Amino acid sequence: MSHIHLSIQDAHALAAACLKANGCNDENAEAIATTIMAAEGDGSAGHGLFRLPGYVASLRSGKVDGKASPSIDRPAPAMVRVNANGGYAPLALEAGRQPLIEAAREQGIAMMALVRAHHFAALWVEIEPLARAGLCAMACTSYMPAMPPAGGAEKLYGTNPVAFGWPRRDAPPMVWDQASAALARGEIMVAARDGHTMPPGVGLDSNGNATTDPKAILDGGMILPFGGYKGSNLAMMVELLAGGLIGEHFSFEAAEHDNKDGGPPRGGEFILAIDPSRLGGDNWLEHSEAFFTRFLSIEGTRMPAARRYANREKLAAEGVDVPEELHGKIVQLTEV
Amino acid sequence: MSHIHLSIQDAHALAAACLKANGCNDENAEAIATTIMAAEGDGSAGHGLFRLPGYVASLRSGKVDGKASPSIDRPAPAMVRVNANGGYAPLALEAGRQPLIEAAREQGIAMMALVRAHHFAALWVEIEPLARAGLCAMACTSYMPAMPPAGGAEKLYGTNPVAFGWPRRDAPPMVWDQASAALARGEIMVAARDGHTMPPGVGLDSNGNATTDPKAILDGGMILPFGGYKGSNLAMMVELLAGGLIGEHFSFEAAEHDNKDGGPPRGGEFILAIDPSRLGGDNWLEHSEAFFTRFLSIEGTRMPAARRYANREKLAAEGVDVPEELHGKIVQLTEV
Repeated sequence: MSHIHLSIQDAHALAAACLKANGCNDENAEAIATTIMAAEGDGSAGHGLFRLPGYVASLRSGKVDGKASPSIDRPAPAMVRVNANGGYAPLALEAGRQPLIEAAREQGIAMMALVRAHHFAALWVEIEPLARAGLCAMACTSYMPAMPPAGGAEKLYGTNPVAFGWPRRDAPPMVWDQASAALARGEIMVAARDGHTMPPGVGLDSNGNATTDPKAILDGGMILPFGGYKGSNLAMMVELLAGGLIGEHFSFEAAEHDNKDGGPPRGGEFILAIDPSRLGGDNWLEHSEAFFTRFLSIEGTRMPAARRYANREKLAAEGVDVPEELHGKIVQLTEV
Repeated sequence: MSHIHLSIQDAHALAAACLKANGCNDENAEAIATTIMAAEGDGSAGHGLFRLPGYVASLRSGKVDGKASPSIDRPAPAMVRVNANGGYAPLALEAGRQPLIEAAREQGIAMMALVRAHHFAALWVEIEPLARAGLCAMACTSYMPAMPPAGGAEKLYGTNPVAFGWPRRDAPPMVWDQASAALARGEIMVAARDGHTMPPGVGLDSNGNATTDPKAILDGGMILPFGGYKGSNLAMMVELLAGGLIGEHFSFEAAEHDNKDGGPPRGGEFILAIDPSRLGGDNWLEHSEAFFTRFLSIEGTRMPAARRYANREKLAAEGVDVPEELHGKIVQLTEV
């Protein structure tokens, strides 16, 4: 596959221009381009420029308002609600970040409810700034039905990611971000291509029976929650926190209301922020560093996000390689 | 195995008498007996009277103060800290429950930090009353090192349970409570006895190599987090929430400070409570009932905790069967 080499700045500018050409105002285009490039620049191409055609599809169909302006209210002292008013999530998340940080510092713990948003990105992008502000943070969001609950063979849950972050001293924050699904669809496609079988518990075939054949999972089957009923319980928790709790759609409702244009459905997100300095003692950061030191002393472990941080440094210096076909498509979408 | 049949009331009285005979004051004995019987009466014998000898061991060694009186403060508006002052968790949790509920209703979201406590029980017992009060609730606690982080072969994490609850309409709350470990030690013992092999990813042998032989896991090996690195990340989150965040021991520190008397080490617990009525709309309960209806319409699913609620009804009417050996031991511990 040939690639087009771009600096981070040029790739950002390309993304922003494409979004503006398709109905985003400057604020939304910049916020989305920043989110896209946070992923692309961390070496996570699947959440990077690869998503841009999906963003454009929903701008063009009119499902998402590229000029939406988020509004914020405070339904309770420790609750910040950000209404994206039918726009994409990035601008709304930016708008809510400082109010959430302030609420967490004032109240000790606070949550943000993101509603009426279209979310199409990774969660670590939202967790990292909170951890950099000295807060412990957790986030989750649902999407459209992709997985059955444990024991069932009918899709109900989205892949429902959960992310968690914790501040470090003299190091970027510890951040993990993981789907409630056993594997990403891309990983199953690679196994199918290479003729490998999957471990048990990863997927069902089109008849709803357990299978280790990646082709059977992809061909009308479905991916399972990770870790059996335990991952399934977590996926249910995500539906309740990012849906029922904040008055937004469950995944099954999101699908029912979606226009199937290929972009993200309307949905919500739950973000939790807690100030460890309130309870952890004056030495709370030293204390958790002692834990991380112990963790890293065990052979074979690595800090979650270590690879992303290494990629970030490398790609900031070297730029990114964008597949020629994707690049051509983005240029085409920008010119129309 | 012969059993002694007892009514729930008689079993409770036996537990309370045993605790009082070993240094508990009335308040602590009643709170612990209530916690023990919540498990025993829900058919979860492993968290029931079976734990009583462990409670007694730490009362006798002097590690735990059976007369400790919990104290409560409010380090921030949405934070309730309950200091068990070196006692067992149940009385402290009872003392903090109403303040936590009130803080969550006032602030929208609130947390409880339980510190200087000895926790030896299941978490659902603490989640259920919060969900019955109309709140969404989450809890987690660490213990002593039992599992390595993913990729490693040295114990660092406790089995680190997480529990989550959500209110139902005309039904007892949805509550799940699960360890971050792939399986309980008891399940591996049963597989060893019956000559079964374990699925991959459950345990390591004494050399730190992956094994599917239950005997090799039990004989100097170790249990792994469920779901590979994803469960391992959750176990890390539990260490940070129930340890670093609230100024309490990480599992490895709990072990270092423990006197190894067989009872629970000193540690902390994190409990989150959120009021769904603040953000979920007037119909929030109807909305989540629609989700549960959809969930239960899928063949093969069952509501978490359904079995416990069924047991509770049955055992409240019929009483419980206590293994004769355990009953004899409790009687003996009570008479001394």
